[in-house]
Amino acid sequence: LKVEIITIGDELTNGEVLNTNAVFMANALTDQGHQVVSITATGDDEWQIQDALLKARDRVEAILVSGGLGPSKDDRTVYSTAKALGLRLVMNKELLETLRERFVQKGLEMTPAHEKLAYLPHPSEILSNPQGTAPGIAIRHRGKLFCLLPENPPELNQIFQEKVLPLLAKEQPEATCFRIRTLKVLGLTESAIADRLKEIEPKNFSASLANLPCYPEHHLKITVQGQIPAEAEANLLQVEALVREKLEEHIFAKDQETLEETVGHLLRAHHYTLSVAESCTGGLVAHRLTQVPGSSDYFERGIVAYSNQAKTALLGVPKSLLEKYGAVSAPVAEKMAEGVRTLSQTTLGLSITGIAGPGGGSGEKPVGTVFIALASPGPTVSRKYHFDGDRKRIKVGSAHTAIDCVRRYCLDQFPGSI
Amino acid sequence: LKVEIITIGDELTNGEVLNTNAVFMANALTDQGHQVVSITATGDDEWQIQDALLKARDRVEAILVSGGLGPSKDDRTVYSTAKALGLRLVMNKELLETLRERFVQKGLEMTPAHEKLAYLPHPSEILSNPQGTAPGIAIRHRGKLFCLLPENPPELNQIFQEKVLPLLAKEQPEATCFRIRTLKVLGLTESAIADRLKEIEPKNFSASLANLPCYPEHHLKITVQGQIPAEAEANLLQVEALVREKLEEHIFAKDQETLEETVGHLLRAHHYTLSVAESCTGGLVAHRLTQVPGSSDYFERGIVAYSNQAKTALLGVPKSLLEKYGAVSAPVAEKMAEGVRTLSQTTLGLSITGIAGPGGGSGEKPVGTVFIALASPGPTVSRKYHFDGDRKRIKVGSAHTAIDCVRRYCLDQFPGSI
Repeated sequence: LKVEIITIGDELTNGEVLNTNAVFMANALTDQGHQVVSITATGDDEWQIQDALLKARDRVEAILVSGGLGPSKDDRTVYSTAKALGLRLVMNKELLETLRERFVQKGLEMTPAHEKLAYLPHPSEILSNPQGTAPGIAIRHRGKLFCLLPENPPELNQIFQEKVLPLLAKEQPEATCFRIRTLKVLGLTESAIADRLKEIEPKNFSASLANLPCYPEHHLKITVQGQIPAEAEANLLQVEALVREKLEEHIFAKDQETLEETVGHLLRAHHYTLSVAESCTGGLVAHRLTQVPGSSDYFERGIVAYSNQAKTALLGVPKSLLEKYGAVSAPVAEKMAEGVRTLSQTTLGLSITGIAGPGGGSGEKPVGTVFIALASPGPTVSRKYHFDGDRKRIKVGSAHTAIDCVRRYCLDQFPGSI
Repeated sequence: LKVEIITIGDELTNGEVLNTNAVFMANALTDQGHQVVSITATGDDEWQIQDALLKARDRVEAILVSGGLGPSKDDRTVYSTAKALGLRLVMNKELLETLRERFVQKGLEMTPAHEKLAYLPHPSEILSNPQGTAPGIAIRHRGKLFCLLPENPPELNQIFQEKVLPLLAKEQPEATCFRIRTLKVLGLTESAIADRLKEIEPKNFSASLANLPCYPEHHLKITVQGQIPAEAEANLLQVEALVREKLEEHIFAKDQETLEETVGHLLRAHHYTLSVAESCTGGLVAHRLTQVPGSSDYFERGIVAYSNQAKTALLGVPKSLLEKYGAVSAPVAEKMAEGVRTLSQTTLGLSITGIAGPGGGSGEKPVGTVFIALASPGPTVSRKYHFDGDRKRIKVGSAHTAIDCVRRYCLDQFPGSI
């Protein structure tokens, strides 16, 4: 279906709030094979809302509206919609009773402002809202479907998933099936990815392929069509297999999975434990690893050795080594990794030392120079990297690459492949 | 001025990308006293672009368009705009020369696709783009101003600030002046803030006051008007002073400043150094502190003691203490803070231990229970907190509160005031 999303609220047009509801709905609609023609954000103004609704009615089949359903004076969506479509507002007694009961349950008093919520355009259908007071409302008018939804994200998400998507699906019984897969890639540039994939013709599988850069990751989104679910799934499997063949171990996760989750699964499967010694990433590697529930099973400790003294005292990096090679060097990175591994008695010891900037760079070691080392039961290995950008970007790039070294080690692809 | 923002790109309407350009522009426009009537996202379709432009022309005075200015076939903005407004596309020889020179400088070859960039609607004005190839374009048509801007955020931001805002300002010579101040608050609930501020009447100072929750912070945005700049500034100073009087030390920063920057300034001013021992925050506190350039001057080390063994080995927390009180307890938090302070010989030692979940909670210590301790030349102090939400939210809330303890200590308001 052709769909338009209209989001209502002054907080959107004056730039105070990111329009995440629209992005959530647009993403889910696209995944279901609908086409979002336009996303509009408009202020809490009755005339602007009417204008947006009527313009949308002219060009699409379904109009999804969020915001302005509450009890306050600023909430004009229901009234404006009824006015734009020439419908009367009629008190729904059943809804009023439900609202009353809810207020009693919560021990709150219901005001006349709240009674407003029981007036609905006639005819319309209630899209019940288990998490909140104001329900969603569906209106069919001149062959077009209007859905009014609350702006609170959990309420909107639930009504959207449970009520709106099924309503839209019913409107397109002949629809083709869509399947989506996102493959997440690290360690290849955009042009290297394009080069490796150039022989794949997604069209042969009714598919399209998009590369969404998401620093430092690249997300390859495969969208596949089919007349029936089995056909779409078969096409998806074929394209995914082709892409995986070309990008090999550079693909570290799919769909919602994160790099640290993948690494967590691998460490668990191998019964490996991990400790980390960080300098320029300043704790970001440990923070990322511990975002995963249950990470305490394999993550033993992290040392943020920001000063040289800390590197010596906590990790046993000899002063002489720091003086001879400098804190940002391969020998120091390797000693840090070995030090944290020995002291924590983990299978693996990961270290990062570098220059995040803006100060501290030199001709020989410019800002962005980073050494990553991994100590393991085998020989300790280190690699030199260069990351572009500002301090925050250098931290993100190095932390991600360091965590990926652990993944590659678990896959027997460290160090040769990084 | 009444302004409409139109952003172009399939990646926006299919929900792959958050519309941050629109939010950036809307925010800056509102700050300058303009009214953003509508924000529209439309796909890379010639007819949709024309439709959006013409509808916008009917209702606002200035139309800002971003996206679709590049050399590829999908980039249809210039062509569609010329078509919608009935203008010819004319080759601008000077621009072509500039583009050629840029390609030579970069050692790249210029293709016919790139020559497309030199064709501009006639008449129009170039908004030069120092960071990129495709320039912005300003068109005056039937009394309305159209500005076409690239979608790459750094390029858009520079052209918008340096060219577009001055153009818009010229159009409204009689405008009132606006001044904005954001005060960032921590440690008070939304209703506590409302309660403290209830006696302030912003209208008496031609001001408005908005509270934007930004977990775990609250951002109070003061918007003030005046006939001349001096009046607006005087009004702002008065309202800001009133708000500061009511919220006192709960205000930790203003405008773009972050909590970790404020803490950095305070530590530097007092010549204090800091070390951190983290458990449930998993490195997030160290990561946040080291986001600030130059933080190595005061941040000495961080220990992420995830296992009990690490707490004992690295921080000297006695095993007996861990057994008696558990890792999540005030005595252990205090020992962690003292341990990291003693070992690193810093002025302050900060520690966090808690249950981030989803596992590990108990009746006595549910998920979200967190102890924060600060060791200093004075007595070591600890406090118990409870944070709601999932693992990530609990980490963010505890890390923020822990860093704020350092700020309050520097202001002589720890522990009494937290």
